[in-house]
Amino acid sequence: MSSIQTIIVSGGTHGNELTGIKLLEKWSKHPELYTNRCPTAHVELVHTNIAASRLCRRYADQDLNRSFSETLLSFVGDPENYEMRRAKELNAKFGPKGPKTRTDLILDVHNTEAKMGFCLIISAHDPFTMRASAELVHEFPDTHIYYQPEERSMSPYFGTLAKADICLEVGPQSHGTIHADLFEQAERIVIRYLELAQEWNRGLLQQKKKKSVDVYTQYKDIDYPRDEAGEINAMIHPYWQDRDYSALNPGDPLFRTFDGESLPYKGTRKVWPIFINEAAYYEKKIAMSLTLKTREEW
Amino acid sequence: MSSIQTIIVSGGTHGNELTGIKLLEKWSKHPELYTNRCPTAHVELVHTNIAASRLCRRYADQDLNRSFSETLLSFVGDPENYEMRRAKELNAKFGPKGPKTRTDLILDVHNTEAKMGFCLIISAHDPFTMRASAELVHEFPDTHIYYQPEERSMSPYFGTLAKADICLEVGPQSHGTIHADLFEQAERIVIRYLELAQEWNRGLLQQKKKKSVDVYTQYKDIDYPRDEAGEINAMIHPYWQDRDYSALNPGDPLFRTFDGESLPYKGTRKVWPIFINEAAYYEKKIAMSLTLKTREEW
Repeated sequence: MSSIQTIIVSGGTHGNELTGIKLLEKWSKHPELYTNRCPTAHVELVHTNIAASRLCRRYADQDLNRSFSETLLSFVGDPENYEMRRAKELNAKFGPKGPKTRTDLILDVHNTEAKMGFCLIISAHDPFTMRASAELVHEFPDTHIYYQPEERSMSPYFGTLAKADICLEVGPQSHGTIHADLFEQAERIVIRYLELAQEWNRGLLQQKKKKSVDVYTQYKDIDYPRDEAGEINAMIHPYWQDRDYSALNPGDPLFRTFDGESLPYKGTRKVWPIFINEAAYYEKKIAMSLTLKTREEW
Repeated sequence: MSSIQTIIVSGGTHGNELTGIKLLEKWSKHPELYTNRCPTAHVELVHTNIAASRLCRRYADQDLNRSFSETLLSFVGDPENYEMRRAKELNAKFGPKGPKTRTDLILDVHNTEAKMGFCLIISAHDPFTMRASAELVHEFPDTHIYYQPEERSMSPYFGTLAKADICLEVGPQSHGTIHADLFEQAERIVIRYLELAQEWNRGLLQQKKKKSVDVYTQYKDIDYPRDEAGEINAMIHPYWQDRDYSALNPGDPLFRTFDGESLPYKGTRKVWPIFINEAAYYEKKIAMSLTLKTREEW
């Protein structure tokens, strides 16, 4: 992106993830907290999934953050399905999805129950989101870059309505709760993204020396072991609970059956798991996402 | 109780608390794991809230574990309300609630997202549950006794269908997930309760020397600070996240507003909070339960 004209700060895309919801509540009462951070852009606050937030559930009818592929957006669908309707509304107002979108940047705030600290999820090799995220990793503790490359038109995530996006995952925090220390650092990170967008628009961020960062790139998701009926029959091995971003080698114990037997990781290469034991992913059949770690100059 | 003839081991009273549900699944496939632990009693496994478990939610229509007061059980109520119907079914099968109940002991397995370890909740000064729980505190790490005295006929908890009960709270574990280390110790604790019931029936437990234990007795529940609209406007102070059972003194910082201001505990006596920041209690307007800690010979 040459210049960032329009920015959305969003939260509540999952209605039980309170960090973003509470950040929007706070900022909408006190716009001075964010409006002066990036005066060269129009910054808008968007509470994406209002119905699910009222229920304090991830979603009402279907996962809103899996509803933004071009296919789904162009599908007539069930008018009774809240998220399908809401995705179309958001697309009409802030898209349309694709190169003609009126939104340059989306910062979408999420929570996870996995011990992932502050995970900056990058969906494309966009120069601003890469440079800004690399700065943030050096400025804030417990902050990590997860690169999850997306074919943008097919991607189901809200952020992909914009030309570029960051999904900020904050955890560990049980859904439906709010933790003060995570809230406060998440707010500072979002503010810094806005300030860095301002630096970008003034051509300053581009002149800074690139930063060396660890990048965790999506490799593949793996499910829990399951029985014939589809019920999980093993748990995350106790070693792996709260060990997101650690190295997992072929043959290492990874799951534990209910009888206490350890099951090894059957992959053939070293990987770095994240989103370990996230409640919302049981129904998606994801026990964790495996990533590959590289050191890069961003 | 002079002798324990009938025992229920139950789980899934809240449908997203997986430790109990998975324990029942395991034991129902391998009855030899529990049937020989207390041969002098009939032990039955009861999956209490089946509909909510299918949804992986706390409840379908209302909290089942708030549905067992005599008033509610005798109330005609809405036949469309699953938990109201289910409470009556369970009462007809395993009660009836009161002195003529056919169940002597209920061990109901729950989870909490608070860092409470293994919390043995005692609802009455019943000699068996007191003696057995005191033994367990000495046998297992991270195990605590919480005495929550209940007027039994008015108490809404499933356990109060029986003459005596233990509610085993296991945490921290995000609802909808399962942690292997917590599962394994929870299973050992339930097994030990069955073995101690056997010792009780043979008159052996009664002869053991009483044990000195910390008892956390319910004092009162407190809510989050809220604004006029009823929305919470302060979070648990970061110091207090994951500090269940620690001492809270009058004037200590207890909450933190979204603007970063610390709010003190306004009570007038020293207390020991538990159930700190439990997601399921936001709707019940409980930020934590305050207890009083005493050293007792049980």
